[in-house]
Formats: sequence, C-alpha cells, structure tokens
Amino acid sequence: MPKKRIVIALGGNALQKNGEVSAEAQKSVAKKVGELIAKLSKSFDIVVAHGNGPQVGNILIHEEQAATDKAPAMPLETAVAMSQGQIGYWLAQSIYNAYAKEGRNKKVATVITQVEVDKNDPAFKNPTKPVGQFYSEKEALKLAKEKGWIVKEDSGRGYRRVVPSPKPKGIIEKREILDLLKTGSTVIAAGGGGVPVYRTKVLRVLKGVDAVIDKDFAAEKLAEMIKADAFLSVTAVDYAYLNFGKPNQLALSRLTSKEAEYYARQGFFGAGSMLPKVLAATEFAKKGKIGIICSLKNLEDALKLKSGTIITK
Amino acid sequence: MPKKRIVIALGGNALQKNGEVSAEAQKSVAKKVGELIAKLSKSFDIVVAHGNGPQVGNILIHEEQAATDKAPAMPLETAVAMSQGQIGYWLAQSIYNAYAKEGRNKKVATVITQVEVDKNDPAFKNPTKPVGQFYSEKEALKLAKEKGWIVKEDSGRGYRRVVPSPKPKGIIEKREILDLLKTGSTVIAAGGGGVPVYRTKVLRVLKGVDAVIDKDFAAEKLAEMIKADAFLSVTAVDYAYLNFGKPNQLALSRLTSKEAEYYARQGFFGAGSMLPKVLAATEFAKKGKIGIICSLKNLEDALKLKSGTIITK
Repeated sequence: MPKKRIVIALGGNALQKNGEVSAEAQKSVAKKVGELIAKLSKSFDIVVAHGNGPQVGNILIHEEQAATDKAPAMPLETAVAMSQGQIGYWLAQSIYNAYAKEGRNKKVATVITQVEVDKNDPAFKNPTKPVGQFYSEKEALKLAKEKGWIVKEDSGRGYRRVVPSPKPKGIIEKREILDLLKTGSTVIAAGGGGVPVYRTKVLRVLKGVDAVIDKDFAAEKLAEMIKADAFLSVTAVDYAYLNFGKPNQLALSRLTSKEAEYYARQGFFGAGSMLPKVLAATEFAKKGKIGIICSLKNLEDALKLKSGTIITK
Repeated sequence: MPKKRIVIALGGNALQKNGEVSAEAQKSVAKKVGELIAKLSKSFDIVVAHGNGPQVGNILIHEEQAATDKAPAMPLETAVAMSQGQIGYWLAQSIYNAYAKEGRNKKVATVITQVEVDKNDPAFKNPTKPVGQFYSEKEALKLAKEKGWIVKEDSGRGYRRVVPSPKPKGIIEKREILDLLKTGSTVIAAGGGGVPVYRTKVLRVLKGVDAVIDKDFAAEKLAEMIKADAFLSVTAVDYAYLNFGKPNQLALSRLTSKEAEYYARQGFFGAGSMLPKVLAATEFAKKGKIGIICSLKNLEDALKLKSGTIITK
C-alpha cells in the first residue's frame, strides 16, 4: 500500500528556541525537526512547508540599512526566495543527517517555490502585513515617498512598511514537487508562503510582486494540489483553543469544518496567529481530508489522531 | 531517442549587464537566458548551474554592515544557500515564462544544492578566495580577532576576508536532480558552486563550512555524476584564448584534453577567470565526453560544435 501523503506547515518561529536567531540556534532547532521528519517518513510521504517571518525580516533589515547603489536592496519577493534557500538548506541538511544516522539513504530536496496570487485580490488595495524594520514617522514618510511604500504605525512601536497579504491561487512548482515525492524524496517547499507571483494579462507570464502570502494558506493549497491525505499546521501550542490564555480557555480536540468556521466567525481565534491555521486546516477538511493543528512535540500523536485539534469535514 | 543531457554553467557575472546589479537589471538578463534555455530544451535535457559572486558578495556586505544581536549575520555557507534561492528564483521564473510564451507547459525547478568537500583539502590550510567588503587594515585585524576570520590585503584596494576554495567531491542532491530531469523538468542546481559541506568523522553527517567552491568545478562534478553528454562553461568571451588580450591572442576552437592541460600548465589562462573553466571542461572531456567554453550568444552554435572552444578526450 502506498504511504499516506502529508503536508506539514511549520510555524515561522518554529525554528527559533527562546527567540534565539543566530544560525547556530536555528540549526539546532532544525536538527530536532529533521529527526522527527525522519521518524515520520517511515509511515508517510512528507512535504515540509515553513514560515519565514523572523528570517525574511532580518534580510530586509540588513538590506534596508546597508543598501547602496553598488549593493542595492532586493525586492521583497526576491528576499522571500532568499529565505527559502536559507531555511530550506537548514531543513534539508537536518533531514538528510537524520536519515544518515539511521543508516538510510533516503532523498530530500528543497524546491524554490512560486505561489500564484490574483492581481485583483482585494489585499492589494489594502496592505496590512508589516515587514522589515521600525522607522520614525519622518523616516517612514520619506521612504514611502522615495520607494512607493505604504507605511503604518505599528502598535505604538513606530512605523513600518506594510504589504498586501493576498490569498494563494496555485502552486507553480506543484508538478515538480509531486515528481520528487513520487520518486522517493522528502520535499521542502512553499517556504514563507512562497514567492508571490501573478500572471500578466496579455502574455500570461509570471511576475513577482511585493507581498507576503500566509504560509498556512499556501501550504494548504499545496496539500490540495498534490492530493495530500492530511494537512498539519504545527505551532507553539498543542491545540487550537477557545478563549486562549483566558481563565475559561478550552482546548479543541475534534471539530467538524462547520464548527471550526462557526468559532472562527465568532472571533475565538487570534487574527494574526491561530485564525489562519484554523481556516487553512478547515479548508482542507472540507475537501474530505484531515486538517490538524498541533505542536511539534505532539506531531506524531496527532497523526494517530491522539492529540492536537483534528478537523474533519 | 532520448535527448542528450547537458549541464550549462553560467558565469557569475552572466546575470549582470554593464555591471548593473539591481534586481530589475539582473532579471532582464535572466529573461534572455530563459529564452535561450527554452529554445535549447527542444533538443536537450538541461541543468543550469550558475555563479553567485556579485550576489553573495552583496548579501555579505549587507550582513556585515547591518548585523546586530537581534538580526545577526548568517555564516557564508548559509549566505550561499540564500543566493541560490535568489538567483534560482529569477532563472526558474524566466525559463518558465519562456516556455509559457511558446505555449509549452514544461516543468522547471530550482534545487538547493549542497556540495561535499574534503575537510582535509589543502585549501582549508591556505584560504585564498576574497569575499565580502573591503576594510581598513585596523578594522580587518579587529574582525580577524573577533570572528576568527583570515584577512588579506587585496590588490592595494584594502583588506578583505579570505576563505578556502576546496575542490568538490560530490553533489549531495544528485539523485533528486536526476529524478527531476528524468520526469521532464529543466533543473537549476549547484548555484554558486553549491553550499560547501563536509562529512563529520564519526557520525558521517553533513556540516556546512565557510568556503567557496568554484562553480565550474562543481558544475563539472554534477555533469559527471548525472552522466551528462556535454558540459558547457558560459562566459563573457566566445572562446578560451592563448595570450588573451595581447596582440598575439589566439582563439582556441578544438583541443584535446592533453593540449588543454599543456596550455594550462604553461600559464596561458588567467588563474581566477579562464583557468578553472578550461580545467573543468578538460576534466569532463577526459571522461570521453565533450567540454565546451563559449559565450551566451554562441551557446547554440557551440552545441552544434560550430563555435566556442571544444575540448575532447
């Protein structure tokens, strides 16, 4: 019997322990992820997607501060591709090493992934996602004028550039990812939600656009397109909760997609944190498959449906 | 009859026109490369390797200048992976678009590539490859002390960090690259000579190391490992020359590997420019295959053996 196919979306902070951002610290977390993936790979064909918030943030901070005419800053879409190379390398090496330690000669590859968005997505009219460093109001307005940025005040901490966060329509490299899976590779793909691209009107060619695609939505879209059996959004907490962090907090273990959508509409989930995970897992469940939200340490149990928030149709 | 398999190594400056380094300028060059690859793909299965000198240089410059504890600089090996994501994205999109314009639905993928080196390679005892920005002597010595860098004076222009340039021993992702080729993808791989890794002594796991692998040597090794029929090193000039740039300059059209090695030993080729290309093409020719040195504009003719320096056994 062929193995079940799963897509695991690792949270953007999943590669950081106690907020440590050095390459060494992130590699040591990647090592743990690699060991877990190696274990799971005995029962599943796996695609690992991952966030890139802290990593692309640092790339942008370095570029914004140190750009010159001779060493210009790259656009956000290219910075996303850079972060895919960075994190994909760490993960691929960790998974490869975990296989090697078990004496297995299994394949693993990171595919740079473009994700198609609709240029008419309403997100382009209302950029909301803050990226890069904080600026004073004066600096921010100057940059807005110079570079055509949209800037917004961010929670009393200063001004930041905001970019659109459009919905993913398709995964450009889905066939290549599937080819690798079918020939026995573990695949790392759709990092950071993918490089956002849209199709031009006349020529129908791809063009990168400065935006950030939610990594859970992108990973879910990939899971759909490659006909995965389960989609897992792996985060810092063990479950999706009602009233998270409040005295009346309740861990959700089993949900139908209707229940999940009801709670989402009622505002039970944090907009920038749990909500996209629940929506992505629910979207996947509605296709008749299994959507899961769980922590890294409970990932194995969640795949046995013994832990985590399990969403079904 | 199956198509012939070729590996094309694009020079590090091949993505820059008139030294312009903006993303826009580099993408416009990538577009031309994409159109050429699309044309050639009708007759050949293609892997594109590429240099990353200017690109990884700019990543290092930004990181060195703007690194903080909260946004630390990444090690060189990780910066190479970042540049693979960056350039790989540009090339993959350009090739995809060229296929799309021809109404073809052909696949293309960038694989983040690790290249194995020997920790006992003599290059580690004698770092020679300058990377990153220029410093004053005082700054350079301070950084050498702080970060364990080796720094050297570079042609009267200031001090720079120097890193080892070891020989490639193997391509970690060769099987995954081959899987993609065999299932119909054009593949971009071994960018910037690959992320240099070595195998640890006891556990035999991979570990990244701050070094730079020559992209022609890495691409040639890949061409060997995937049993390519031809290896092409694409550069700014149409041929390898004897006495290049001198009044008695002579373009070399056909060479045996013995002749090529003789000229190389006699010092006819520039050490940091033409020599590695000739040595890589010769190494490949010695396996009974065809090694070619040519310009981008003559690439198609070179594959018909009508232009470029053609090296055979």
